[in-house]
Amino acid sequence: MTVEYDYIRDPQEIYRQSFAQIKAAADFGSMPADIADIAVRVIHACGMPEAVDELAWSNDVAIKGREALKAGAKIIVDCRMARDGIIRNRLPADNEILCPLIDARVPEIAKEIGNTRSAAAVELWKEHLEGAVVVIGNAPTALFRLLEVLHAGAPKPAAILGFPVGFVGAAESKEALIEADIGVPFMTLRGRRGGSAIASAALNAVAKDNQ
Amino acid sequence: MTVEYDYIRDPQEIYRQSFAQIKAAADFGSMPADIADIAVRVIHACGMPEAVDELAWSNDVAIKGREALKAGAKIIVDCRMARDGIIRNRLPADNEILCPLIDARVPEIAKEIGNTRSAAAVELWKEHLEGAVVVIGNAPTALFRLLEVLHAGAPKPAAILGFPVGFVGAAESKEALIEADIGVPFMTLRGRRGGSAIASAALNAVAKDNQ
Repeated sequence: MTVEYDYIRDPQEIYRQSFAQIKAAADFGSMPADIADIAVRVIHACGMPEAVDELAWSNDVAIKGREALKAGAKIIVDCRMARDGIIRNRLPADNEILCPLIDARVPEIAKEIGNTRSAAAVELWKEHLEGAVVVIGNAPTALFRLLEVLHAGAPKPAAILGFPVGFVGAAESKEALIEADIGVPFMTLRGRRGGSAIASAALNAVAKDNQ
Repeated sequence: MTVEYDYIRDPQEIYRQSFAQIKAAADFGSMPADIADIAVRVIHACGMPEAVDELAWSNDVAIKGREALKAGAKIIVDCRMARDGIIRNRLPADNEILCPLIDARVPEIAKEIGNTRSAAAVELWKEHLEGAVVVIGNAPTALFRLLEVLHAGAPKPAAILGFPVGFVGAAESKEALIEADIGVPFMTLRGRRGGSAIASAALNAVAKDNQ
């Protein structure tokens, strides 16, 4: 039996209509244009226009993140899914993407510090943190631990795109990021929602040069 | 400065509290127990208890999917993020995970058939479809194309976990799956929401032996 569904098969047209629908459905209010660009990508990744109301950010996160990437900054991710969501050919300097979570030393460090493997991996982020762009798409404990090591004097990243997801610690870790006052540009999504697709979409938007 | 946040650092306790919160927040109604197990994992992946109301499934999807995996079925995914969300050491038969989207032939096939790369990759799924477990976490066009090739007589997979996301075609492709009447067990989430984290979480739940 031949069944042919009526759907749009042209990828450019799919993108065009998607972004048109997002712009019609979400109220970007007085958001700066370069922040709205990230917001559009975040909404695109999760299919939820209402997520725009939960976004929080510092106004320099797009420009500082983009400058860093152009200058060759490393990208540090908290999990493999976030890494794979990054569109590599959009990166301006063939930037290295580091996922220390998969390092063989992580389980041992987790035992030592009495924390999750995601948090333990942050010990291995330290030597790469300076000027890096950090992308967190999974673990609240990674974001909490990052804030702890930054408060304790670890080198500052250029930007934090912090989108951990879930029921235990996610909302709290993102509020901690918003309130941390550590002088690092950031973007986040309040509440339980988040995830690697959103986090990597935010990175992809930051990486894209709109000028 | 030493700042230590008050958060749960024990992964087992994080899981325990997460699942307790999910069970308190979502109404699983008269859902069969093995379907509710998948629903819990889906909610865990996205942080949205209300997603339970949009789930649609055939009652045999958990058992048929699990039987297939135990018997060594291949897993076919539509994107790398879905692949990386699968917990490999939970797979009962060290099952092979195929991601034909990254095959070098895909762009050429996409041109030939006048469809997206995600849909074009389905041409390369065909030879692996029989008895496989299909996991779609990104592309509505992959799900539409899969339904088309199944209607046209392609070998039937053991189960379809169909969770494409987005504004153009996602809701429609999932309604098409629900209505397809092709005799393949499935689970899906109505509407725009979906994504690789949800899709791979569903696979992980199916793979887990609760008996």
